[in-house]
Amino acid sequence: MTNPTAAMIVIGDEILSGRTRDSNMHYLAGELTKVGIDLREVRVVSDDAPAIVAAVKALSAAYTHVFTSGGIGPTHDDITADCIAEAFDRTIDVRDDARALLAAHYARTGGELNTARLRMARIPAGASLIENPVSTAPGFTLENVHVMAGVPTVFQAMVATILPTLTGGQPLMSQTLRIQRGEGDIAGPLGELAGRYPDLSIGSYPYQQNGAYGANIVIRGQDGARVDAAMSELTALFPA
Amino acid sequence: MTNPTAAMIVIGDEILSGRTRDSNMHYLAGELTKVGIDLREVRVVSDDAPAIVAAVKALSAAYTHVFTSGGIGPTHDDITADCIAEAFDRTIDVRDDARALLAAHYARTGGELNTARLRMARIPAGASLIENPVSTAPGFTLENVHVMAGVPTVFQAMVATILPTLTGGQPLMSQTLRIQRGEGDIAGPLGELAGRYPDLSIGSYPYQQNGAYGANIVIRGQDGARVDAAMSELTALFPA
Repeated sequence: MTNPTAAMIVIGDEILSGRTRDSNMHYLAGELTKVGIDLREVRVVSDDAPAIVAAVKALSAAYTHVFTSGGIGPTHDDITADCIAEAFDRTIDVRDDARALLAAHYARTGGELNTARLRMARIPAGASLIENPVSTAPGFTLENVHVMAGVPTVFQAMVATILPTLTGGQPLMSQTLRIQRGEGDIAGPLGELAGRYPDLSIGSYPYQQNGAYGANIVIRGQDGARVDAAMSELTALFPA
Repeated sequence: MTNPTAAMIVIGDEILSGRTRDSNMHYLAGELTKVGIDLREVRVVSDDAPAIVAAVKALSAAYTHVFTSGGIGPTHDDITADCIAEAFDRTIDVRDDARALLAAHYARTGGELNTARLRMARIPAGASLIENPVSTAPGFTLENVHVMAGVPTVFQAMVATILPTLTGGQPLMSQTLRIQRGEGDIAGPLGELAGRYPDLSIGSYPYQQNGAYGANIVIRGQDGARVDAAMSELTALFPA
């Protein structure tokens, strides 16, 4: 069985300038792994329309799903919705259902639904809304692209809204063995083990702790029995 | 004056599975900003040769510099050097100067320079080495691609080695004003301000704290006097 695939586009100058450390990529990666959707690629692009449009076109054609974060607020640098419309050659305008959500929210909280805030009701034609239980302004799905906010609490809430609606795959089973020897000492037998289990992904992630080298060996696969078998061999090769 | 541009390729299944949270992107972004090299794009790809080769080809053609992290260790899943050679159609083999560095290191530390560790001396033809003061195994530069380790301490040491050799640009001046009002309340005047300063980048980064909304407005540009002028106007528009 082949799992659905996914890519992510992180949109924002603040990530590329080093001002802000992105946390949405790591969060989404973990959530997708749980439901058996394979995140294959992430691109971080600036608040630049041609760059966003190009990434949306390339990744939506290559993967089952694309998830974006950032650029859907009320300010002049929030251009994601327009870029998504352009990428799929759709019109975009304030939509009644999105406007109604915002109107109810600001009636309740006492804010003003001004021109700037109405920008957050601009939705490309044919999209469906993604609920935002944190701050109301919705995300949306158009074709296979799921457009979400960059603020982590809102991003996470939108992911929780959208993920149960997607068809997942076989979650990856994963086991880790921590080996307190340098990678160079274990690489030979480890490579042979990987060769005997071509259906599994066997990764070696080195670390350094108190001046000593070691590696975490992670064995991943869809078949739990195969992962168990490979882990038994690994443990026999490198007893604690 | 136009600054040199850059892209980064983060290589590793462990980032895309959510197992490891990447820290090299945020580090490199900050260092490049300091020296006036504009990081325009980051791609995170898996330990998959076609994906790595495609990213190297696309980004090395589009930007002044490309920086990679990950996949240059001694284990079977370390395939970055071979992929760089393939992307530039170069041969790759163990190189005497890289082997000599490793031989001296293992003679000193008592490790064995076995077949696996010798993989770390495989360098594409025509590359120059990047010193690794942490654990010796070198990175390398081929054409405009700088290939570095994924372990953060080693990555940072290699960045410190390579950055002073590159021609930087005009470092961006940056000023930030924290405004304790929702983005929707400030977006109108803020957009007009941005329109009056098309030479500057004016970004709005919303936050939520103790249930209240606010935004950090960041004004960036190469001309400090222009940044000052825009910041004066912004402060007048939204007094504390």
